[in-house]
Amino acid sequence: MAKKLMIVASKGSLDMAYPPLILAQTAAALGMEAAVFFTFWGLDIIRKDRVDNLKVTPVGNPSMGMPAILSILPGMTGMATSMMKKKIKELGMPTIREMLKELKEMGVKLYACSNTVELMGLKREDLIEEVDDIVGATFFLQQAAEDAIVLFV
Amino acid sequence: MAKKLMIVASKGSLDMAYPPLILAQTAAALGMEAAVFFTFWGLDIIRKDRVDNLKVTPVGNPSMGMPAILSILPGMTGMATSMMKKKIKELGMPTIREMLKELKEMGVKLYACSNTVELMGLKREDLIEEVDDIVGATFFLQQAAEDAIVLFV
Amino acid sequence: MAKKLMIVASKGSLDMAYPPLILAQTAAALGMEAAVFFTFWGLDIIRKDRVDNLKVTPVGNPSMGMPAILSILPGMTGMATSMMKKKIKELGMPTIREMLKELKEMGVKLYACSNTVELMGLKREDLIEEVDDIVGATFFLQQAAEDAIVLFV
Repeated sequence: MAKKLMIVASKGSLDMAYPPLILAQTAAALGMEAAVFFTFWGLDIIRKDRVDNLKVTPVGNPSMGMPAILSILPGMTGMATSMMKKKIKELGMPTIREMLKELKEMGVKLYACSNTVELMGLKREDLIEEVDDIVGATFFLQQAAEDAIVLFV
Repeated sequence: MAKKLMIVASKGSLDMAYPPLILAQTAAALGMEAAVFFTFWGLDIIRKDRVDNLKVTPVGNPSMGMPAILSILPGMTGMATSMMKKKIKELGMPTIREMLKELKEMGVKLYACSNTVELMGLKREDLIEEVDDIVGATFFLQQAAEDAIVLFV
Repeated sequence: MAKKLMIVASKGSLDMAYPPLILAQTAAALGMEAAVFFTFWGLDIIRKDRVDNLKVTPVGNPSMGMPAILSILPGMTGMATSMMKKKIKELGMPTIREMLKELKEMGVKLYACSNTVELMGLKREDLIEEVDDIVGATFFLQQAAEDAIVLFV
């Protein structure tokens, strides 16, 4: 039995921010060790200036059912984001910021990818305080090699 | 040796619907247990009203080589979808609906994610009959922890 | 301890080409076996005519912070791509083409997915010479089943 969950979060959209956090939360609730490794656009999820403003966009996502020519109009991404946030609230689901706090309390480790932190010119103080450390791919793979469930979102 | 394949299907586009189904089919053919866990936009693949109308869009996908300003024009997503479907037919590959039936016959388990079923306001009867069950992240992780190949598509 | 890394590279954009290659490189540096399996749009990374022209697009990616209506204007994808390439160069990171050569020298295996090679009407000579072989999903799963870290990017 794997006793650990290692998830890479590489997307910074509101819809794709939830799966890694929900899985990490579930793993922790099951008594597994869990860690989320934020890389590339996924860094948005742990950036102080962006975590509360993640967006879901109908642009390029045929599942949202909006014609492309309409999807690019000003306000459409904002509208889709508001609708998703409203639905999340109605269902009693936490916001992304609330989930991050909860994960931290449950002992889930939150890591920022050092390569992309550098690529985007970020500093430690640009990231939310819940972040445990800024680590490289070596650290990630060493952790992932120890009998873990490993996912790239 | 892993004896099981657990795949999360989180995308609802025609192009990204194939990889999880092809891998599950291949695993079953190799005598492995296999399960696909449909979540977020991936639910489109098992929605009665959408499974036959999955689309591939050139919007936001530079690999399709269409200038963004053209990609958003009415008809472009339809055209790209028709071209991909035609190519798939020429190669004798099954449609998504046919693959789902085949997977079911091969014993592959098809699960819908309970969180997103709720988030999208869906009911069991909105999903194709091949779906085995609506399950949560706990179920998924427990299955994934048992010496499985686990992928998030 | 897993002694092998198997990565599927399914995206053909410049930003999403890096993660699988960086992880494979890191794995090899750690003394692990590593292989990258290029499928669907990921084939762009190993196509002679495309490897040097991978693009990053602001279209459909809210993390790039460009309003959708601007993101589709001619030149915007080119500009985003130039900016990312410039940043990569400033940081002393290799180009995608350089990374592929380096991976090859480190013994990382590079495989093209036979299904999508066929779907896109490609031939062996359309792919860069560093590619080891064109293989199917069966080969991939058999390799992945042998105590590997397996990721789908």
